[in-house]
Amino acid sequence: MENQELSQKVQELQGRVDKLEAKNSRLTMILFSGDFDKVMAAFIIANGALAMGKEVTMFVTFWGLDALKKPEMGTAGKNILEKMITWMRPKGPTQLPTSKMNFGGIGPKLFKYMMGKKNVEPVSSLMEMAMEFGLRIVACQMSMDVMGIKKEDLLDGIEFGGVAVFLSESYGSNTTLFV
Amino acid sequence: MENQELSQKVQELQGRVDKLEAKNSRLTMILFSGDFDKVMAAFIIANGALAMGKEVTMFVTFWGLDALKKPEMGTAGKNILEKMITWMRPKGPTQLPTSKMNFGGIGPKLFKYMMGKKNVEPVSSLMEMAMEFGLRIVACQMSMDVMGIKKEDLLDGIEFGGVAVFLSESYGSNTTLFV
Amino acid sequence: MENQELSQKVQELQGRVDKLEAKNSRLTMILFSGDFDKVMAAFIIANGALAMGKEVTMFVTFWGLDALKKPEMGTAGKNILEKMITWMRPKGPTQLPTSKMNFGGIGPKLFKYMMGKKNVEPVSSLMEMAMEFGLRIVACQMSMDVMGIKKEDLLDGIEFGGVAVFLSESYGSNTTLFV
Repeated sequence: MENQELSQKVQELQGRVDKLEAKNSRLTMILFSGDFDKVMAAFIIANGALAMGKEVTMFVTFWGLDALKKPEMGTAGKNILEKMITWMRPKGPTQLPTSKMNFGGIGPKLFKYMMGKKNVEPVSSLMEMAMEFGLRIVACQMSMDVMGIKKEDLLDGIEFGGVAVFLSESYGSNTTLFV
Repeated sequence: MENQELSQKVQELQGRVDKLEAKNSRLTMILFSGDFDKVMAAFIIANGALAMGKEVTMFVTFWGLDALKKPEMGTAGKNILEKMITWMRPKGPTQLPTSKMNFGGIGPKLFKYMMGKKNVEPVSSLMEMAMEFGLRIVACQMSMDVMGIKKEDLLDGIEFGGVAVFLSESYGSNTTLFV
Repeated sequence: MENQELSQKVQELQGRVDKLEAKNSRLTMILFSGDFDKVMAAFIIANGALAMGKEVTMFVTFWGLDALKKPEMGTAGKNILEKMITWMRPKGPTQLPTSKMNFGGIGPKLFKYMMGKKNVEPVSSLMEMAMEFGLRIVACQMSMDVMGIKKEDLLDGIEFGGVAVFLSESYGSNTTLFV
């Protein structure tokens, strides 16, 4: 091979290796669960990665959407099933149940108390912190459609998209978690 | 270094980088859960990835096997515990419970109704679609042994294997999800 | 480009590609769940990967910590809430409930019986085996603090750390699972 040709190939390879290494600067999560403890775990990981300078994308779907709901979310313009789901599901991080030891809603309160005593931020603060540090939240459009959740029902400052958005983020990330 | 030697090294590197990049064309999932909503999420992701031209392998284990069962699955040749499990567990995608709001089986029916109204395919169609588009399903042989599930109890066109199959798939994939 | 310069660049690239390929020799898991079946799945995967010569790190957090507890774990020096949690939560692999078909604790016993009949190791043996084969277990310090779990309450031979440990392990691994 000619030296010049070789030099071109090496440069091309450098670009490709750069791209492969760049995956380490990104983290992708699917937040499927709406359980207090899992949402907390997801946002602790997100905050940790953001603090390490990573770009983090959280694709939020199904019950995970409960964590993004505004507490004042209403039922106007929803059909009867959508209204029922709105009434029955938690609205926002302070209403989420724990996956174990929920005890009719006392569990999350106990955890919050115990977390406060150990100076661990409550989930709502973890969420705010992450968004301030640049967390990209993408709410799953299809889940929203099925459950009758409108854009204005969810937190401001988030994006909306489908599984293709999640997959393309994931293909640029070294680590992808399903929570 | 000689120009020829250098040229060989560059070619070798190209092959290795090709292989690393090829991971982006594959996706691996473990489907551990047999909950309607999680099975649905897994197959929506699988279909999305297949539509983007990826090779997708789903390693199905534990409760996830419920989704692969034929509704007519029988109990012949099973011992008493295996019979009990066969009777008590859902058989196929139409019998799966939701992880939240199941309400004794009404939940999945409501979801199916709401999905239909928004033109979202039911789980059984998502599964068929994925398999037509080339999804590779590997049922966990060890889980089948423990729960007394026979090959003929599960969908046609799937493979059977152990954790080594999952791991080698995962090592060729950029993204691996535990659902 | 000069031949010498080129040669240097190729060597540098080799080092970077070596590092990217080395990710395939490592596997990272978060064990969030304390359910018998999920803990079992996590340790079967860990043992499989260890048998294939991989380095495996398991970051254990929230309910997953139940699996690491010594059965004789006491309540001395704990406050009233921490004592309550200690009393109510399972202590060690033999006390874990299954996520489905628990039937007040009969489920895990049935599974253990069925696993024994098919020569599948019980969870406690899977854990011991994995640790003998070099599994690195890191217990989440923050979860321990919140729930009042002390180092001496957990298995010997494990490490303690935070989300940063998990993230740095994950960035050196091709595959990371959230169980």
